[in-house]
Amino acid sequence: MSTHWIQTVSLVPPSLKDNTADTERLLHALSLRLNTDAVHIDLDLMRRLPELLRQYGYRIRCILWKSHRQWHLLEVTAAEETRTAAGLAVDLGTTRVVLRLIDLASGRILAESAFDNPQDSIGPDILARIHFTEKENGLKKLNESIISALNNAIEKLCASERFKPEQIYALAVAGNTTMTHLFMGLDPKWIIREPYIPVVNSPGTLKAGSLGLKVHPRARVLIFPNIGSYFGGDLIAGILYSGIYQNDPTGILVDVGTNAEVVLGNENWLIACAGAAGPALEGGVTRMGMTAGPGVIDQIGVDLNTLDFNIHTIEDLPPKGICGSGVIDLAAQLFLTGMIDIRGKLVPKVCGPKIKEIDGLLHLVVVPAEHSATGSDLTISQADLDSLIRSKAAMYTILETITASVGIAPQDLESFYVAGTFGSFINPQSAITIGMLPDLPLDRYKPLGNSSLGGAALVLQSEKYHDEIDQIRDRITYLELNVNQDFMNRFSAAKFLPHTNTKLFPSVKIVQKR
Amino acid sequence: MSTHWIQTVSLVPPSLKDNTADTERLLHALSLRLNTDAVHIDLDLMRRLPELLRQYGYRIRCILWKSHRQWHLLEVTAAEETRTAAGLAVDLGTTRVVLRLIDLASGRILAESAFDNPQDSIGPDILARIHFTEKENGLKKLNESIISALNNAIEKLCASERFKPEQIYALAVAGNTTMTHLFMGLDPKWIIREPYIPVVNSPGTLKAGSLGLKVHPRARVLIFPNIGSYFGGDLIAGILYSGIYQNDPTGILVDVGTNAEVVLGNENWLIACAGAAGPALEGGVTRMGMTAGPGVIDQIGVDLNTLDFNIHTIEDLPPKGICGSGVIDLAAQLFLTGMIDIRGKLVPKVCGPKIKEIDGLLHLVVVPAEHSATGSDLTISQADLDSLIRSKAAMYTILETITASVGIAPQDLESFYVAGTFGSFINPQSAITIGMLPDLPLDRYKPLGNSSLGGAALVLQSEKYHDEIDQIRDRITYLELNVNQDFMNRFSAAKFLPHTNTKLFPSVKIVQKR
Repeated sequence: MSTHWIQTVSLVPPSLKDNTADTERLLHALSLRLNTDAVHIDLDLMRRLPELLRQYGYRIRCILWKSHRQWHLLEVTAAEETRTAAGLAVDLGTTRVVLRLIDLASGRILAESAFDNPQDSIGPDILARIHFTEKENGLKKLNESIISALNNAIEKLCASERFKPEQIYALAVAGNTTMTHLFMGLDPKWIIREPYIPVVNSPGTLKAGSLGLKVHPRARVLIFPNIGSYFGGDLIAGILYSGIYQNDPTGILVDVGTNAEVVLGNENWLIACAGAAGPALEGGVTRMGMTAGPGVIDQIGVDLNTLDFNIHTIEDLPPKGICGSGVIDLAAQLFLTGMIDIRGKLVPKVCGPKIKEIDGLLHLVVVPAEHSATGSDLTISQADLDSLIRSKAAMYTILETITASVGIAPQDLESFYVAGTFGSFINPQSAITIGMLPDLPLDRYKPLGNSSLGGAALVLQSEKYHDEIDQIRDRITYLELNVNQDFMNRFSAAKFLPHTNTKLFPSVKIVQKR
Repeated sequence: MSTHWIQTVSLVPPSLKDNTADTERLLHALSLRLNTDAVHIDLDLMRRLPELLRQYGYRIRCILWKSHRQWHLLEVTAAEETRTAAGLAVDLGTTRVVLRLIDLASGRILAESAFDNPQDSIGPDILARIHFTEKENGLKKLNESIISALNNAIEKLCASERFKPEQIYALAVAGNTTMTHLFMGLDPKWIIREPYIPVVNSPGTLKAGSLGLKVHPRARVLIFPNIGSYFGGDLIAGILYSGIYQNDPTGILVDVGTNAEVVLGNENWLIACAGAAGPALEGGVTRMGMTAGPGVIDQIGVDLNTLDFNIHTIEDLPPKGICGSGVIDLAAQLFLTGMIDIRGKLVPKVCGPKIKEIDGLLHLVVVPAEHSATGSDLTISQADLDSLIRSKAAMYTILETITASVGIAPQDLESFYVAGTFGSFINPQSAITIGMLPDLPLDRYKPLGNSSLGGAALVLQSEKYHDEIDQIRDRITYLELNVNQDFMNRFSAAKFLPHTNTKLFPSVKIVQKR
């Protein structure tokens, strides 16, 4: 990875033969170097330029940034200057904000940190926060809360690398549409009211100072664009990071959170849709479900003889709950061993003593009280399983719908990118077994990790991605998911394990039925 | 004159079929209207946009500005809003600053005012001011002095039109290179030191706030570019105003002050030079000379029988001195009547009792003490006349040199623009008679008035001139006036009245010799 942000130039000193002004002398040399027609400079730097050029003998290091085809000269130092010029990628999540510090010269990652979004104490979700903005000074409070938390985190992160926030010259911020509005101090009121209109789709590049960020006074902030209330800059960053927009074979990017966001496409076209797919897959929905963290079960196997569970917990701590990937593993194992049937219903005669009835509802004990961190049984109920079935059916139906819209089947996909924590922890074979994801060769499944952060980091690592962000945004066709008869037929067929049409899942072999 | 600065647009309100964000909905409509690919909006206006659009029912009046191919949306009001949106043209002179208020909707001139440049009390000329910037806080003082004087003048001018400075959305500022530097707070130190390097050639457009100007908070300031220390934005504005850069026949623009600045050209090329030509033509150089003002002699005729002078003074007040155009008239009449000879020497036998010897030097009494406002004789000395001869010779030599550089003669010029006060007052026939200006048909002489202000006003009256400013600057070839043998030969020939080669001045007929 090489960048163009840092340029060391030796200018021909002025003479009677060439009386070009200081500013144009420098900007012209940079224009040639960067193959652009103009480079912009702020007035305050222009004011210092004559002294700097003469002090450094016309040999200088320039720190630059690009926004929308326009290059900006942000700082001039001695050519020998070795202090790092850094960029900061920000994944502006509703619940968690992740920062990644990049060396602008090399594109190298210097450090990362994360913090819980402090807006959570004002409103735990997007909807609550938007309603809060309608109170007196509500928007101001939410805006100041995130900006001040960012400033604190930036200060700490920089201190850990022994440098100053003033050494950050560029930021790239990817967040959902509402978070981006709150970050910019834009009223998000109309995002949640029909016809769901954001204040801005493409904020472009702003000065860090105008946003209240305490970094270099001339630093620029690139803010990822959205294509509406439901499809934010975090997803545009994800598409950028996945690279599906520049591949020849059609690929898909799936980001599962409260919503499932899906983008299908290739170098020629992109189709996106979003739908409520995930309730069973996130913490707080299944009684024992939780987000991934220490002590949480993320993988489960079953001993085929004893039907005992082999559990793995994050950091190998005593189990205290189960996360989405664990639930999917569990459901797959239950199905393969016949402990649940094709409809996802617990089969008492197979489960035997693992079944308990609590308040009239069947529960399966995954970890008995004596082995759990909580001192109580960790169980999964029939209601949890029903919820999972609906979620996996919704997911598969969305995949079928979006691929059908371009005349292909989920089984035709050449690459399948799964974003986020979900993508990192999920066992694709388990997801295939329950019919949540299509039955593709496993090597086509590619976990992306934090693709929003990854995409934000890319624009700090090379300016070639800057124009691509807008191209991606403009190329996306948004597919409205109409819950019509067609959709409902597909959904009904997908509510079985793995599917009513088992030919779609040839790799799923049921081990035994007892 | 019609402008594009004010656009009234009716937007299609958002719907489920079209969920484009507020910002893009408006900017896209403006882009189509203005035939541009993007319109920029500042964050603070973007923050207010959702409310404004809904309050005005998507029917709004937009105030725009253009800088370097980029349009900026500066304000949004109700479509019915009738308050004037104004622009301000500024001629930023070393001694006098002139303001012209323009209605941005119609391009119409609303009002004008002028004030003496307060920097005069710090340093009367460019050189003194540049030296002052080397003192502690010197630049800051000079900068604050002009900015605060501008703010005061703007406030008064707006009050006279019953509006607020916040109704000024755009400024266009034309000044010489040093004045432009002081206005921008740029260190002018290197302008007067070999190799004479300005900080910037093309400042472009800045925010008024960054310059400390108290107008609309989002107002933009276009600053005219220079091509070096000796050829400033005032002259670029003058070229724009004269139109010579877009004419087919080659024309010339002459601006006479302490220096004579000359631009020769047509739609294909422009050549400029500057030289010390004018000392005899400005106040303070001839003992009785002064700048034009009430009571100053601006026209002189001679009664051929009595050789008495028929004088005209500005505002018909008793005469107290004589300005440049008066001196030229006088010299022409003296020559035609034989009171001075071909070398400009007073001829005592013709002048008769009008001649006086003071301190060993011959003087001609133009106004006897009893008719003058000062109570003393108004006279012109042989030294004054010698100085005038040198000046007129320098002027003609410059004209010959610059025309010769492209293979034409001064007599070939199709149009001859004379800028400034000098151009407004001068009698071209008198200037021809003494051989200062070439012997062209009189209708080819066109006084331009304040061409610097005129050019600055043009960019407020139509955006088509914006790109032309840069094109003019880039097309100018600067001709260094080398005082070589060729120049000296021309100069010697031009030191006669009208010239050693009288064939060059066929219209000059000597009336009589006594």
